[in-house]
Amino acid sequence: MRFRVASKLKYSVLGKGTLIFSVHALRSPSQTITDEKLLVTPPATCDEFNIQPGHNRFVRVEAGAGPEINIEYHAIVEAGHFLVPMKKLLAVPVGKLDPEALSFLFPSRYCQSDKLGRLAYQKFGSIRHPFRKVVAISDWIFENIEYVRGSTDSQTSAYDTVTERAGVCRDFAHLGIALCRALSIPARYLTGYAYQLEPPDFHACFEAYIGGRWLLFDPTRLVPLNGIVRIASGRDAADAAVATLFGPIRSKSMSVSCEAIDEGFEPINRQQLDNHGICLDPV
Amino acid sequence: MRFRVASKLKYSVLGKGTLIFSVHALRSPSQTITDEKLLVTPPATCDEFNIQPGHNRFVRVEAGAGPEINIEYHAIVEAGHFLVPMKKLLAVPVGKLDPEALSFLFPSRYCQSDKLGRLAYQKFGSIRHPFRKVVAISDWIFENIEYVRGSTDSQTSAYDTVTERAGVCRDFAHLGIALCRALSIPARYLTGYAYQLEPPDFHACFEAYIGGRWLLFDPTRLVPLNGIVRIASGRDAADAAVATLFGPIRSKSMSVSCEAIDEGFEPINRQQLDNHGICLDPV
Amino acid sequence: MRFRVASKLKYSVLGKGTLIFSVHALRSPSQTITDEKLLVTPPATCDEFNIQPGHNRFVRVEAGAGPEINIEYHAIVEAGHFLVPMKKLLAVPVGKLDPEALSFLFPSRYCQSDKLGRLAYQKFGSIRHPFRKVVAISDWIFENIEYVRGSTDSQTSAYDTVTERAGVCRDFAHLGIALCRALSIPARYLTGYAYQLEPPDFHACFEAYIGGRWLLFDPTRLVPLNGIVRIASGRDAADAAVATLFGPIRSKSMSVSCEAIDEGFEPINRQQLDNHGICLDPV
Amino acid sequence: MRFRVASKLKYSVLGKGTLIFSVHALRSPSQTITDEKLLVTPPATCDEFNIQPGHNRFVRVEAGAGPEINIEYHAIVEAGHFLVPMKKLLAVPVGKLDPEALSFLFPSRYCQSDKLGRLAYQKFGSIRHPFRKVVAISDWIFENIEYVRGSTDSQTSAYDTVTERAGVCRDFAHLGIALCRALSIPARYLTGYAYQLEPPDFHACFEAYIGGRWLLFDPTRLVPLNGIVRIASGRDAADAAVATLFGPIRSKSMSVSCEAIDEGFEPINRQQLDNHGICLDPV
Repeated sequence: MRFRVASKLKYSVLGKGTLIFSVHALRSPSQTITDEKLLVTPPATCDEFNIQPGHNRFVRVEAGAGPEINIEYHAIVEAGHFLVPMKKLLAVPVGKLDPEALSFLFPSRYCQSDKLGRLAYQKFGSIRHPFRKVVAISDWIFENIEYVRGSTDSQTSAYDTVTERAGVCRDFAHLGIALCRALSIPARYLTGYAYQLEPPDFHACFEAYIGGRWLLFDPTRLVPLNGIVRIASGRDAADAAVATLFGPIRSKSMSVSCEAIDEGFEPINRQQLDNHGICLDPV
Repeated sequence: MRFRVASKLKYSVLGKGTLIFSVHALRSPSQTITDEKLLVTPPATCDEFNIQPGHNRFVRVEAGAGPEINIEYHAIVEAGHFLVPMKKLLAVPVGKLDPEALSFLFPSRYCQSDKLGRLAYQKFGSIRHPFRKVVAISDWIFENIEYVRGSTDSQTSAYDTVTERAGVCRDFAHLGIALCRALSIPARYLTGYAYQLEPPDFHACFEAYIGGRWLLFDPTRLVPLNGIVRIASGRDAADAAVATLFGPIRSKSMSVSCEAIDEGFEPINRQQLDNHGICLDPV
Repeated sequence: MRFRVASKLKYSVLGKGTLIFSVHALRSPSQTITDEKLLVTPPATCDEFNIQPGHNRFVRVEAGAGPEINIEYHAIVEAGHFLVPMKKLLAVPVGKLDPEALSFLFPSRYCQSDKLGRLAYQKFGSIRHPFRKVVAISDWIFENIEYVRGSTDSQTSAYDTVTERAGVCRDFAHLGIALCRALSIPARYLTGYAYQLEPPDFHACFEAYIGGRWLLFDPTRLVPLNGIVRIASGRDAADAAVATLFGPIRSKSMSVSCEAIDEGFEPINRQQLDNHGICLDPV
Repeated sequence: MRFRVASKLKYSVLGKGTLIFSVHALRSPSQTITDEKLLVTPPATCDEFNIQPGHNRFVRVEAGAGPEINIEYHAIVEAGHFLVPMKKLLAVPVGKLDPEALSFLFPSRYCQSDKLGRLAYQKFGSIRHPFRKVVAISDWIFENIEYVRGSTDSQTSAYDTVTERAGVCRDFAHLGIALCRALSIPARYLTGYAYQLEPPDFHACFEAYIGGRWLLFDPTRLVPLNGIVRIASGRDAADAAVATLFGPIRSKSMSVSCEAIDEGFEPINRQQLDNHGICLDPV
């Protein structure tokens, strides 16, 4: 399925500074990108880089030439989504986990899994199958956390959300990640463009590592899972912020869009999946 | 300088589980390792791995064969320490930082740099030279945080320590890292063996990225900087714990040692360095 | 029912200081005290006082005469416990609450009811009868929080316990209070001697204000409700600590006892009560 | 000096509920109130009460008659302010403190003095005179905490402010109180009308108990100390909130004013006082 994705971000520039963006769709075996364009006005020094090869694409922009800086990103992304039958989603004991998944077991800034152990075992410890366990986590978040715009800020973490019971997509994802890790299931944060998200915005959800694959979960249930275009993944929002600002730079406005180019999009929601997980990477 | 390092860890095993250790001295251009030996009794399935090539060495042990498991590690490490004159330690703006250093700017589980911005600017913002800035941070921690064994636990973070004003090496390092990152200086956590540490134990300190190098700082001032043998580095203790236990396994005891093999060790302390930084990696 | 209560507390005195104790059984319409004795050795300046007339009895001791100070308290307490049928425990809207109960609606140091609003409404908001509501709160704590000696310290608060899911009687009481207040039910902390508590110690539980009476709840279920002798009540443990130390004074040991003098004690547990609440004050 | 004080508060009423206000100027030996008027529109059931005789005046209003409720309060207050020479502000050891002051030593919801002990001793422990100690605390807050409107919310506490270094009058007062209590100086929260506050609003500051008197401190330095009219005092903002809302009621707007009626007001600021404290109560 092809999507046309775009984002426009405006900043006030009060002095010299640097902006690091993570708005590019990821290039991967399941995401082919064409017609990609990044426009920075007024023109500024830019470099695109990865921290790890093949991973999140960052662009760094030097600000300082004017009172404002505008970033505009456009691309067409052919994005694949793969169904995996539950019988392939077997438990992998920590002793057999791929090393690269192990670091997604550790607690991080917004996902204090080390503090959620008893709670996670109480609620989900008796569920044997790891896929059902994460489904139960995601359902529990949907049912117990209220989606309330503006109720949280950039310092809010899973430890807050589990008690305060309100948040936005970022908070839902952080809580899902923290609960998975507390149960020794690697989990990571994902940001992306999301088709049919209302109102349009960047979206965040999470992936859990089960049976050697990263399975996608969205506890907000706001969008079809096959309408998500991956921008970045990481331990939590600290790794995958849309924009990180250094210096006297202030956000002014932001707009985001994601449209289907091909016809015949058939939404897949977790609830419809009968014994299947969904994966953004080829199986 | 050559050091003989060793550690012995004993665990009660109440049921099947997995232990992940980070006790091996790192192999690196500045650390040559000989006579290395890892002994696990009773014998158990072990695998050694890296999460990233050339980085922290982990060993994973499957427990379950008996009521106890013992890990014993020995090695001889030829470890280099390099002095760098301050004039080479120039400020690198975020716009010019190596991408691999950038992720050490982000907040992490125990280093909530996002909450320490105003405090860090108030105290250290007027110091221009980045090396002097980190020296001032390290000195401030030494002067204001009391080293009190047992005052903190594995959940204690920089946000706690900055107010509660007591902790151990791990807490001192976390606070140093958080303050550096709050000032846009990449910083990372380091664990190691430490010569002349009393009582002998694993040690933790931190590195700040200045002028394209990782400079070593130890706000505890407990050991000579050239007596540190690196085990691992990471964003904070979540990445570089000596042992991470999965399953019903309890720590029973631990002993650590680090002796100089060659004669003529001349301790270098930060206070003695006149306008020089010290680096564990070749310059 | 008459109880013989006693407590012995020993402190190291490293220099001049003051100790404030709250170990005296409260004098009240339902508690008659005879044979009361307070022994301080070595002899020291003591004064007994109330902060509010008729309320918690404090004793203040000036330390400084020796390397140690010992406090020994003995009394015989005739303590009443009153059953109130549920039909008398009607909801009182905030608009009709006695002013003196109102301050027990406000959040306090260890009972951050202001952060637990959504959680409390989710779990207990649909229960109409205020007595059943508090019973459900107390049952939920018993079922979801593990009683683990040594798992918490004097800084632990309800906000921690609700997520970390472990604690001691003090933590159980704080969480019960916080959840009641979050639902606009006044609640207060109670310390006392407790018959049949194993191992013997001071005990803490909580009272909720329903239908114009303070009803007793003990989410630990460790003791019969009619075996509790009130020492003090307050907003939380900050108001009713057994001992508050000023100066270089360290606790060395403590022993507590509570025995029934009269025969025929018939334990009343919350679970046995069929549609009745229990009150420490005459109805 | 006579002041004309007024406040108008508007609320949306979405359903039945109760509002508790604390906007009345306190009646006390140093505050004489005339021409007092409280207007509630549409007319509603109101009762005025104290929780303790002679203390904070609350008014409770039953809402439910319309889509909005408006509260308007006017009064003329003759308010005294008393200078006390430093030589009368002697240290009172805890052993000699009036019992009623003792409860203002305990930690409270927004003033976690139990966590600030080391910090407080480090910074202020060497200052001998208790008045100078509190002056130093108040000056330190003024110098280190930035007054930033909107930077905090109703859950912000002294533990946050001491690290995050920004806040409003309420946060400044909470931090002052917490630091005093950590040093065994009783301290309480005060709300009031404040002459020359720009923009006009309710104000918060704190009182410390020294030499048997409650001395006034305002670490914001926003107003003359002799322009403050006391509304309420308490352990912290939990006791003395301007309005506490129960039920589906939302704040819409608020306006406050405080004008001098008599001519010849001569502002007294802490900085001008030469070795004198200022007290709201007769000496």
